[in-house]
Amino acid sequence: MLTKYKGYLIDLDGTMYLGTDIIPGAPEFIDRLNAANIPYLFVTNNSSRTPKQVADKLVKMGIHTTPENVFTTSRATAQFIHDEKPGASVYVIGEDGILEALTDKGLEVVTHENPDYVVTGIDRGITYEKLAGACLSVRNGARFISTNGDIAIPTERGFLPGNGSLTSVVTVSTETQPVFIGKPEPVIMEQALAVLGTTKEETIMVGDYYDTDIRAGIGIGIDTLLVYTGVTQPDHLDRYEIKPTHTSQNLNEWPI
Amino acid sequence: MLTKYKGYLIDLDGTMYLGTDIIPGAPEFIDRLNAANIPYLFVTNNSSRTPKQVADKLVKMGIHTTPENVFTTSRATAQFIHDEKPGASVYVIGEDGILEALTDKGLEVVTHENPDYVVTGIDRGITYEKLAGACLSVRNGARFISTNGDIAIPTERGFLPGNGSLTSVVTVSTETQPVFIGKPEPVIMEQALAVLGTTKEETIMVGDYYDTDIRAGIGIGIDTLLVYTGVTQPDHLDRYEIKPTHTSQNLNEWPI
Repeated sequence: MLTKYKGYLIDLDGTMYLGTDIIPGAPEFIDRLNAANIPYLFVTNNSSRTPKQVADKLVKMGIHTTPENVFTTSRATAQFIHDEKPGASVYVIGEDGILEALTDKGLEVVTHENPDYVVTGIDRGITYEKLAGACLSVRNGARFISTNGDIAIPTERGFLPGNGSLTSVVTVSTETQPVFIGKPEPVIMEQALAVLGTTKEETIMVGDYYDTDIRAGIGIGIDTLLVYTGVTQPDHLDRYEIKPTHTSQNLNEWPI
Repeated sequence: MLTKYKGYLIDLDGTMYLGTDIIPGAPEFIDRLNAANIPYLFVTNNSSRTPKQVADKLVKMGIHTTPENVFTTSRATAQFIHDEKPGASVYVIGEDGILEALTDKGLEVVTHENPDYVVTGIDRGITYEKLAGACLSVRNGARFISTNGDIAIPTERGFLPGNGSLTSVVTVSTETQPVFIGKPEPVIMEQALAVLGTTKEETIMVGDYYDTDIRAGIGIGIDTLLVYTGVTQPDHLDRYEIKPTHTSQNLNEWPI
Protein backbone atom coordinates (compact mmCIF):
# COMPACT_ATOMS: atom_id res chain seq x y z
CA MET A 1 0.00 0.00 0.00
CA LEU A 2 1.43 3.34 -1.02
CA THR A 3 0.83 6.54 0.84
CA LYS A 4 -0.91 9.22 -1.17
CA TYR A 5 1.53 12.14 -1.17
CA LYS A 6 0.17 15.67 -1.26
CA GLY A 7 3.33 17.33 -2.62
CA TYR A 8 6.16 16.28 -4.96
CA LEU A 9 9.74 17.49 -5.25
CA ILE A 10 11.13 16.17 -8.54
CA ASP A 11 14.58 15.94 -10.07
CA LEU A 12 15.07 16.75 -13.76
CA ASP A 13 18.12 15.16 -15.43
CA GLY A 14 17.76 11.36 -15.34
CA THR A 15 14.20 11.64 -14.02
CA MET A 16 12.37 13.77 -16.62
CA TYR A 17 14.93 13.65 -19.44
CA LEU A 18 18.37 12.33 -20.36
CA GLY A 19 20.27 15.07 -22.15
CA THR A 20 17.93 15.95 -25.01
CA ASP A 21 15.72 12.83 -24.78
CA ILE A 22 12.51 12.71 -22.78
CA ILE A 23 12.20 9.75 -20.41
CA PRO A 24 9.13 7.60 -21.20
CA GLY A 25 6.38 8.14 -18.66
CA ALA A 26 7.65 11.53 -17.51
CA PRO A 27 5.12 13.72 -19.40
CA GLU A 28 2.26 11.45 -18.32
CA PHE A 29 3.44 11.61 -14.70
CA ILE A 30 3.32 15.42 -14.72
CA ASP A 31 -0.07 15.32 -16.48
CA ARG A 32 -1.39 13.06 -13.72
CA LEU A 33 -0.11 15.43 -11.02
CA ASN A 34 -1.69 18.38 -12.84
CA ALA A 35 -5.00 16.53 -13.23
CA ALA A 36 -5.04 15.62 -9.53
CA ASN A 37 -4.14 19.20 -8.49
CA ILE A 38 -1.11 17.93 -6.58
CA PRO A 39 1.51 20.68 -6.22
CA TYR A 40 5.06 19.88 -7.34
CA LEU A 41 8.41 21.60 -7.88
CA PHE A 42 11.28 20.57 -10.09
CA VAL A 43 14.33 20.86 -7.86
CA THR A 44 17.50 21.25 -9.92
CA ASN A 45 21.19 21.84 -9.21
CA ASN A 46 21.55 23.48 -12.62
CA SER A 47 22.49 27.10 -11.86
CA SER A 48 23.04 28.20 -15.44
CA ARG A 49 19.46 28.34 -16.65
CA THR A 50 16.62 30.58 -15.50
CA PRO A 51 13.32 28.96 -14.46
CA LYS A 52 11.81 30.19 -17.73
CA GLN A 53 14.61 28.60 -19.78
CA VAL A 54 14.14 25.33 -17.91
CA ALA A 55 10.34 25.39 -18.34
CA ASP A 56 10.70 26.21 -22.05
CA LYS A 57 12.93 23.16 -22.52
CA LEU A 58 10.45 20.94 -20.66
CA VAL A 59 7.47 22.23 -22.63
CA LYS A 60 9.32 21.59 -25.91
CA MET A 61 9.84 18.01 -24.73
CA GLY A 62 6.12 17.61 -24.11
CA ILE A 63 6.02 18.22 -20.36
CA HIS A 64 3.19 20.59 -19.46
CA THR A 65 4.68 22.86 -16.84
CA THR A 66 5.51 26.51 -16.09
CA PRO A 67 8.49 28.50 -14.68
CA GLU A 68 6.68 28.67 -11.32
CA ASN A 69 7.19 24.92 -10.95
CA VAL A 70 10.97 25.18 -11.38
CA PHE A 71 13.06 25.63 -8.25
CA THR A 72 16.71 26.11 -9.19
CA THR A 73 19.75 26.17 -6.94
CA SER A 74 20.26 29.73 -8.18
CA ARG A 75 16.91 30.71 -6.74
CA ALA A 76 17.80 28.96 -3.47
CA THR A 77 21.20 30.69 -3.38
CA ALA A 78 19.64 34.12 -3.86
CA GLN A 79 17.07 33.41 -1.15
CA PHE A 80 19.78 32.17 1.23
CA ILE A 81 21.85 35.34 0.82
CA HIS A 82 18.78 37.59 1.00
CA ASP A 83 17.76 35.93 4.27
CA GLU A 84 21.21 36.58 5.73
CA LYS A 85 21.78 40.06 4.35
CA PRO A 86 19.21 41.80 2.12
CA GLY A 87 20.81 43.92 -0.62
CA ALA A 88 24.23 42.31 -0.09
CA SER A 89 26.99 42.72 -2.68
CA VAL A 90 27.95 39.51 -4.48
CA TYR A 91 30.95 38.59 -6.64
CA VAL A 92 29.72 35.95 -9.08
CA ILE A 93 31.23 33.19 -11.14
CA GLY A 94 28.32 31.87 -13.16
CA GLU A 95 25.93 32.13 -16.08
CA ASP A 96 22.46 33.60 -16.74
CA GLY A 97 20.54 31.62 -14.15
CA ILE A 98 22.49 32.72 -11.11
CA LEU A 99 22.93 36.33 -12.29
CA GLU A 100 19.19 36.73 -12.86
CA ALA A 101 18.26 35.05 -9.58
CA LEU A 102 20.54 37.33 -7.56
CA THR A 103 19.44 40.59 -9.19
CA ASP A 104 15.75 39.53 -9.05
CA LYS A 105 16.18 39.20 -5.29
CA GLY A 106 17.61 42.74 -5.00
CA LEU A 107 21.21 41.65 -4.45
CA GLU A 108 24.01 43.70 -5.98
CA VAL A 109 26.27 41.87 -8.44
CA VAL A 110 29.73 43.48 -8.25
CA THR A 111 33.13 42.92 -9.85
CA HIS A 112 35.34 44.46 -7.15
CA GLU A 113 37.16 42.32 -4.61
CA ASN A 114 35.51 43.45 -1.40
CA PRO A 115 32.01 41.98 -1.72
CA ASP A 116 29.86 40.57 1.08
CA TYR A 117 29.58 37.23 -0.73
CA VAL A 118 31.31 35.17 -3.39
CA VAL A 119 29.03 32.79 -5.30
CA THR A 120 30.32 30.11 -7.65
CA GLY A 121 28.07 28.42 -10.18
CA ILE A 122 28.88 26.55 -13.36
CA ASP A 123 30.49 28.98 -15.81
CA ARG A 124 31.47 27.81 -19.29
CA GLY A 125 33.10 31.24 -19.73
CA ILE A 126 35.41 30.77 -16.76
CA THR A 127 38.69 32.77 -16.86
CA TYR A 128 41.74 33.03 -14.63
CA GLU A 129 40.71 36.61 -13.85
CA LYS A 130 37.26 35.50 -12.63
CA LEU A 131 38.88 32.87 -10.39
CA ALA A 132 41.48 35.36 -9.17
CA GLY A 133 38.77 37.86 -8.20
CA ALA A 134 36.87 35.16 -6.32
CA CYS A 135 40.00 34.08 -4.44
CA LEU A 136 40.96 37.65 -3.53
CA SER A 137 37.39 38.33 -2.36
CA VAL A 138 37.30 35.25 -0.12
CA ARG A 139 40.72 36.20 1.29
CA ASN A 140 39.28 39.67 1.93
CA GLY A 141 36.57 38.09 4.08
CA ALA A 142 33.65 37.53 1.70
CA ARG A 143 31.32 34.66 2.67
CA PHE A 144 31.84 31.83 0.20
CA ILE A 145 28.79 30.13 -1.31
CA SER A 146 28.64 27.46 -4.01
CA THR A 147 25.43 26.64 -5.88
CA ASN A 148 26.26 22.93 -5.84
CA GLY A 149 29.02 20.39 -5.43
CA ASP A 150 28.37 18.38 -8.61
CA ILE A 151 31.76 17.17 -9.82
CA ALA A 152 30.74 16.37 -13.40
CA ILE A 153 28.09 17.13 -16.01
CA PRO A 154 26.97 14.31 -18.30
CA THR A 155 27.02 15.39 -21.96
CA GLU A 156 27.16 13.68 -25.35
CA ARG A 157 30.98 14.28 -25.22
CA GLY A 158 31.30 12.53 -21.86
CA PHE A 159 31.55 13.90 -18.33
CA LEU A 160 32.61 17.57 -18.33
CA PRO A 161 33.72 19.54 -15.25
CA GLY A 162 30.82 20.37 -12.95
CA ASN A 163 30.49 23.31 -10.61
CA GLY A 164 31.89 21.37 -7.67
CA SER A 165 35.18 21.04 -9.52
CA LEU A 166 35.32 24.71 -10.52
CA THR A 167 34.47 25.67 -6.93
CA SER A 168 37.48 23.66 -5.76
CA VAL A 169 39.87 26.22 -7.30
CA VAL A 170 38.70 28.76 -4.72
CA THR A 171 38.41 26.19 -1.93
CA VAL A 172 41.94 24.87 -2.49
CA SER A 173 43.59 28.23 -3.13
CA THR A 174 42.05 30.04 -0.16
CA GLU A 175 41.80 27.00 2.15
CA THR A 176 38.19 28.01 2.80
CA GLN A 177 35.19 25.69 2.53
CA PRO A 178 32.05 27.07 0.85
CA VAL A 179 28.47 26.68 1.97
CA PHE A 180 26.89 24.40 -0.65
CA ILE A 181 23.25 25.18 -1.49
CA GLY A 182 22.16 22.47 -3.97
CA LYS A 183 21.19 18.82 -3.48
CA PRO A 184 22.09 16.81 -1.42
CA GLU A 185 22.41 19.78 0.97
CA PRO A 186 19.32 20.69 2.99
CA VAL A 187 19.27 24.39 2.01
CA ILE A 188 17.60 23.97 -1.38
CA MET A 189 15.28 21.25 -0.07
CA GLU A 190 13.97 23.18 2.92
CA GLN A 191 13.35 26.21 0.72
CA ALA A 192 11.57 24.16 -1.96
CA LEU A 193 9.38 22.57 0.71
CA ALA A 194 8.44 25.99 2.05
CA VAL A 195 7.46 27.16 -1.45
CA LEU A 196 5.49 23.97 -2.08
CA GLY A 197 3.55 24.53 1.14
CA THR A 198 3.13 20.90 2.17
CA THR A 199 4.44 19.27 5.35
CA LYS A 200 7.36 16.87 5.45
CA GLU A 201 5.03 13.95 6.14
CA GLU A 202 2.96 14.77 3.07
CA THR A 203 5.86 15.28 0.66
CA ILE A 204 8.06 12.97 -1.39
CA MET A 205 11.33 13.54 -3.27
CA VAL A 206 11.58 11.81 -6.65
CA GLY A 207 14.91 11.29 -8.41
CA ASP A 208 17.29 8.95 -10.23
CA TYR A 209 20.53 9.57 -8.33
CA TYR A 210 20.98 8.33 -4.78
CA ASP A 211 23.94 10.57 -3.93
CA THR A 212 22.09 13.81 -4.66
CA ASP A 213 18.32 13.27 -4.91
CA ILE A 214 17.68 10.50 -2.43
CA ARG A 215 20.29 11.76 0.02
CA ALA A 216 18.68 15.20 -0.17
CA GLY A 217 15.25 13.80 0.71
CA ILE A 218 16.61 11.66 3.53
CA GLY A 219 18.57 14.67 4.79
CA ILE A 220 15.44 16.69 5.52
CA GLY A 221 13.42 13.69 6.67
CA ILE A 222 10.95 13.22 3.82
CA ASP A 223 10.04 10.09 1.89
CA THR A 224 11.89 9.30 -1.31
CA LEU A 225 11.25 7.56 -4.61
CA LEU A 226 14.22 6.32 -6.58
CA VAL A 227 13.46 5.75 -10.27
CA TYR A 228 15.84 3.54 -12.24
CA THR A 229 15.85 5.76 -15.31
CA GLY A 230 19.19 7.49 -14.72
CA VAL A 231 22.33 7.04 -12.63
CA THR A 232 21.56 4.72 -9.70
CA GLN A 233 20.65 1.12 -10.56
CA PRO A 234 19.19 -1.64 -8.30
CA ASP A 235 22.56 -3.30 -7.62
CA HIS A 236 24.05 0.03 -6.45
CA LEU A 237 21.74 0.12 -3.44
CA ASP A 238 23.77 -2.50 -1.58
CA ARG A 239 26.34 0.13 -0.73
CA TYR A 240 23.86 2.44 0.97
CA GLU A 241 22.73 1.83 4.51
CA ILE A 242 19.58 3.92 4.28
CA LYS A 243 17.40 2.75 1.38
CA PRO A 244 14.95 4.95 -0.54
CA THR A 245 11.39 4.72 0.78
CA HIS A 246 10.23 3.51 -2.64
CA THR A 247 11.83 2.40 -5.89
CA SER A 248 10.33 2.15 -9.36
CA GLN A 249 11.46 1.10 -12.83
CA ASN A 250 9.89 4.24 -14.27
CA LEU A 251 7.27 6.83 -13.46
CA ASN A 252 4.54 5.04 -15.43
CA GLU A 253 4.53 2.43 -12.69
CA TRP A 254 4.12 4.97 -9.93
CA PRO A 255 0.55 5.54 -8.72
CA ILE A 256 0.18 9.10 -7.44
CA MET B 1 81.47 24.59 12.18
CA LEU B 2 79.75 24.44 8.82
CA THR B 3 80.29 21.75 6.25
CA LYS B 4 81.64 22.98 2.93
CA TYR B 5 79.02 21.94 0.39
CA LYS B 6 80.08 21.05 -3.15
CA GLY B 7 76.72 21.61 -4.81
CA TYR B 8 73.77 23.96 -4.24
CA LEU B 9 70.09 23.65 -5.14
CA ILE B 10 68.52 27.08 -4.71
CA ASP B 11 64.98 28.38 -4.62
CA LEU B 12 64.11 31.63 -6.43
CA ASP B 13 61.05 33.50 -5.11
CA GLY B 14 61.69 34.61 -1.51
CA THR B 15 65.32 33.48 -1.73
CA MET B 16 66.73 35.43 -4.70
CA TYR B 17 63.96 37.99 -5.17
CA LEU B 18 60.58 39.02 -3.86
CA GLY B 19 58.32 39.78 -6.82
CA THR B 20 60.33 42.40 -8.71
CA ASP B 21 62.76 43.26 -5.88
CA ILE B 22 66.14 41.61 -5.49
CA ILE B 23 66.86 40.25 -2.01
CA PRO B 24 70.02 41.85 -0.49
CA GLY B 25 72.93 39.43 -0.52
CA ALA B 26 71.53 37.24 -3.29
CA PRO B 27 73.71 38.54 -6.17
CA GLU B 28 76.84 38.38 -3.98
CA PHE B 29 75.97 34.82 -2.94
CA ILE B 30 75.81 33.68 -6.58
CA ASP B 31 79.02 35.61 -7.33
CA ARG B 32 80.75 33.76 -4.49
CA LEU B 33 79.52 30.39 -5.83
CA ASN B 34 80.73 31.32 -9.32
CA ALA B 35 84.13 32.45 -8.00
CA ALA B 36 84.57 29.21 -6.06
CA ASN B 37 83.48 27.11 -9.04
CA ILE B 38 80.74 25.49 -6.98
CA PRO B 39 77.94 24.14 -9.22
CA TYR B 40 74.38 25.20 -8.48
CA LEU B 41 70.90 25.00 -9.94
CA PHE B 42 67.91 27.22 -9.32
CA VAL B 43 65.05 24.81 -8.65
CA THR B 44 61.70 26.45 -9.34
CA ASN B 45 58.06 25.36 -9.32
CA ASN B 46 57.27 28.09 -11.86
CA SER B 47 56.14 26.21 -14.97
CA SER B 48 55.19 29.25 -17.04
CA ARG B 49 58.64 30.61 -17.87
CA THR B 50 61.40 29.01 -19.93
CA PRO B 51 64.90 28.72 -18.39
CA LYS B 52 66.01 31.58 -20.68
CA GLN B 53 63.14 33.79 -19.51
CA VAL B 54 64.02 33.03 -15.89
CA ALA B 55 67.76 33.69 -16.43
CA ASP B 56 66.99 36.94 -18.27
CA LYS B 57 64.97 38.14 -15.29
CA LEU B 58 67.75 37.22 -12.87
CA VAL B 59 70.46 38.90 -14.98
CA LYS B 60 68.37 42.08 -15.17
CA MET B 61 68.22 42.02 -11.37
CA GLY B 62 72.00 41.78 -11.15
CA ILE B 63 72.38 38.03 -10.63
CA HIS B 64 75.11 36.65 -12.90
CA THR B 65 73.69 33.36 -14.14
CA THR B 66 72.68 31.50 -17.31
CA PRO B 67 69.70 29.37 -18.49
CA GLU B 68 71.78 26.23 -17.83
CA ASN B 69 71.58 27.00 -14.13
CA VAL B 70 67.78 27.09 -14.13
CA PHE B 71 65.96 23.83 -13.43
CA THR B 72 62.21 24.34 -13.80
CA THR B 73 59.39 21.98 -12.90
CA SER B 74 58.51 22.04 -16.61
CA ARG B 75 61.92 20.60 -17.46
CA ALA B 76 61.45 17.97 -14.73
CA THR B 77 57.97 17.15 -16.02
CA ALA B 78 59.23 16.66 -19.58
CA GLN B 79 62.08 14.46 -18.34
CA PHE B 80 59.70 12.41 -16.19
CA ILE B 81 57.38 11.69 -19.13
CA HIS B 82 60.28 11.04 -21.52
CA ASP B 83 61.73 8.49 -19.07
CA GLU B 84 58.39 6.69 -18.91
CA LYS B 85 57.44 6.91 -22.59
CA PRO B 86 59.66 8.69 -25.14
CA GLY B 87 57.69 10.55 -27.79
CA ALA B 88 54.46 10.28 -25.80
CA SER B 89 51.45 12.44 -26.68
CA VAL B 90 50.54 15.06 -24.08
CA TYR B 91 47.42 17.18 -23.56
CA VAL B 92 48.60 20.38 -21.89
CA ILE B 93 47.09 23.07 -19.72
CA GLY B 94 49.89 25.60 -19.33
CA GLU B 95 51.99 28.46 -20.68
CA ASP B 96 55.27 28.88 -22.62
CA GLY B 97 57.55 27.13 -20.17
CA ILE B 98 55.81 23.78 -20.11
CA LEU B 99 55.02 23.79 -23.84
CA GLU B 100 58.67 24.46 -24.75
CA ALA B 101 60.01 21.92 -22.28
CA LEU B 102 57.77 19.15 -23.63
CA THR B 103 58.48 19.78 -27.31
CA ASP B 104 62.23 20.21 -26.62
CA LYS B 105 62.16 16.71 -25.15
CA GLY B 106 60.53 15.29 -28.27
CA LEU B 107 57.10 14.85 -26.74
CA GLU B 108 54.02 15.51 -28.87
CA VAL B 109 51.66 18.23 -27.63
CA VAL B 110 48.15 17.33 -28.79
CA THR B 111 44.65 18.78 -28.41
CA HIS B 112 42.59 15.61 -28.88
CA GLU B 113 41.18 13.71 -25.92
CA ASN B 114 43.04 10.41 -26.20
CA PRO B 115 46.60 11.40 -25.21
CA ASP B 116 49.08 9.31 -23.25
CA TYR B 117 49.42 12.07 -20.64
CA VAL B 118 47.61 15.10 -19.29
CA VAL B 119 49.85 17.80 -17.83
CA THR B 120 48.53 20.74 -15.84
CA GLY B 121 50.66 23.83 -15.20
CA ILE B 122 49.69 27.36 -14.29
CA ASP B 123 47.69 28.85 -17.16
CA ARG B 124 46.49 32.43 -17.00
CA GLY B 125 44.59 31.70 -20.23
CA ILE B 126 42.59 28.87 -18.69
CA THR B 127 39.20 28.15 -20.29
CA TYR B 128 36.36 25.72 -19.62
CA GLU B 129 37.20 23.96 -22.88
CA LYS B 130 40.81 23.37 -21.78
CA LEU B 131 39.60 21.95 -18.47
CA ALA B 132 36.96 19.85 -20.24
CA GLY B 133 39.58 18.35 -22.57
CA ALA B 134 41.82 17.51 -19.63
CA CYS B 135 38.96 15.83 -17.75
CA LEU B 136 37.84 13.82 -20.79
CA SER B 137 41.46 12.74 -21.43
CA VAL B 138 41.96 11.55 -17.85
CA ARG B 139 38.64 9.69 -17.99
CA ASN B 140 39.88 8.13 -21.26
CA GLY B 141 42.88 6.75 -19.38
CA ALA B 142 45.60 9.38 -19.82
CA ARG B 143 48.19 9.48 -17.02
CA PHE B 144 47.64 12.66 -15.02
CA ILE B 145 50.66 14.82 -14.15
CA SER B 146 50.74 18.21 -12.41
CA THR B 147 53.81 20.46 -12.49
CA ASN B 148 53.24 21.48 -8.87
CA GLY B 149 50.72 21.68 -6.08
CA ASP B 150 51.22 25.36 -5.17
CA ILE B 151 47.83 26.62 -4.05
CA ALA B 152 48.56 30.34 -4.44
CA ILE B 153 50.89 32.78 -6.20
CA PRO B 154 51.98 35.89 -4.29
CA THR B 155 51.50 39.05 -6.40
CA GLU B 156 51.16 42.76 -5.76
CA ARG B 157 47.34 42.21 -5.93
CA GLY B 158 47.48 39.51 -3.24
CA PHE B 159 47.44 35.71 -3.48
CA LEU B 160 46.13 34.54 -6.85
CA PRO B 161 45.19 30.94 -7.72
CA GLY B 162 48.24 28.69 -8.10
CA ASN B 163 48.58 25.61 -10.24
CA GLY B 164 47.61 23.31 -7.40
CA SER B 165 44.19 24.94 -7.30
CA LEU B 166 43.70 24.77 -11.09
CA THR B 167 44.81 21.13 -11.03
CA SER B 168 42.07 20.41 -8.48
CA VAL B 169 39.38 20.94 -11.13
CA VAL B 170 40.58 17.80 -12.90
CA THR B 171 41.31 15.94 -9.66
CA VAL B 172 37.86 16.62 -8.23
CA SER B 173 35.93 16.11 -11.46
CA THR B 174 37.61 12.83 -12.46
CA GLU B 175 38.27 11.58 -8.89
CA THR B 176 41.86 10.90 -10.02
CA GLN B 177 44.97 12.07 -8.17
CA PRO B 178 47.82 13.47 -10.29
CA VAL B 179 51.52 12.77 -9.93
CA PHE B 180 53.00 16.05 -8.68
CA ILE B 181 56.48 16.87 -10.03
CA GLY B 182 57.52 20.12 -8.29
CA LYS B 183 58.79 20.81 -4.77
CA PRO B 184 58.24 19.42 -2.16
CA GLU B 185 57.92 16.22 -4.23
CA PRO B 186 61.11 14.22 -4.80
CA VAL B 187 60.81 14.03 -8.61
CA ILE B 188 62.16 17.50 -9.38
CA MET B 189 64.81 17.23 -6.64
CA GLU B 190 66.25 13.88 -7.72
CA GLN B 191 66.43 15.11 -11.30
CA ALA B 192 68.11 18.38 -10.32
CA LEU B 193 70.64 16.48 -8.23
CA ALA B 194 71.46 14.22 -11.18
CA VAL B 195 72.02 17.27 -13.41
CA LEU B 196 74.14 18.96 -10.75
CA GLY B 197 76.31 15.85 -10.52
CA THR B 198 77.09 16.00 -6.80
CA THR B 199 76.20 13.39 -4.19
CA LYS B 200 73.47 13.82 -1.59
CA GLU B 201 76.07 14.19 1.17
CA GLU B 202 77.77 17.03 -0.71
CA THR B 203 74.63 18.95 -1.64
CA ILE B 204 72.44 21.46 0.15
CA MET B 205 68.98 22.86 -0.64
CA VAL B 206 68.55 26.60 0.04
CA GLY B 207 65.13 28.20 0.32
CA ASP B 208 62.78 30.49 2.24
CA TYR B 209 59.69 28.29 2.53
CA TYR B 210 59.65 25.26 4.80
CA ASP B 211 56.63 23.58 3.21
CA THR B 212 58.16 23.40 -0.26
CA ASP B 213 61.93 24.05 -0.20
CA ILE B 214 63.00 22.57 3.12
CA ARG B 215 60.53 19.69 2.90
CA ALA B 216 61.87 18.94 -0.60
CA GLY B 217 65.45 18.76 0.69
CA ILE B 218 64.49 16.64 3.68
CA GLY B 219 62.46 14.40 1.38
CA ILE B 220 65.48 13.29 -0.62
CA GLY B 221 67.81 13.22 2.38
CA ILE B 222 70.04 16.24 1.75
CA ASP B 223 70.99 19.09 4.07
CA THR B 224 68.92 22.25 4.03
CA LEU B 225 69.41 25.95 4.65
CA LEU B 226 66.35 28.00 5.54
CA VAL B 227 66.81 31.74 4.90
CA TYR B 228 64.45 34.14 6.67
CA THR B 229 63.98 36.38 3.63
CA GLY B 230 60.63 35.04 2.48
CA VAL B 231 57.71 33.03 3.82
CA THR B 232 58.90 30.99 6.83
CA GLN B 233 59.99 32.94 9.90
CA PRO B 234 61.85 31.72 13.05
CA ASP B 235 58.68 31.36 15.16
CA HIS B 236 57.07 29.16 12.49
CA LEU B 237 59.62 26.42 13.06
CA ASP B 238 57.95 25.32 16.31
CA ARG B 239 55.29 23.55 14.30
CA TYR B 240 57.74 21.39 12.37
CA GLU B 241 59.23 18.28 13.91
CA ILE B 242 62.19 18.06 11.54
CA LYS B 243 64.17 21.31 11.58
CA PRO B 244 66.26 22.65 8.68
CA THR B 245 69.95 21.68 8.95
CA HIS B 246 70.86 25.38 8.99
CA THR B 247 69.07 28.70 9.23
CA SER B 248 70.27 32.16 8.29
CA GLN B 249 68.91 35.72 8.38
CA ASN B 250 70.11 36.22 4.83
CA LEU B 251 72.61 34.84 2.33
CA ASN B 252 75.28 37.44 3.19
CA GLU B 253 75.70 35.62 6.49
CA TRP B 254 76.20 32.26 4.84
CA PRO B 255 79.82 31.15 4.32
CA ILE B 256 80.05 28.89 1.30
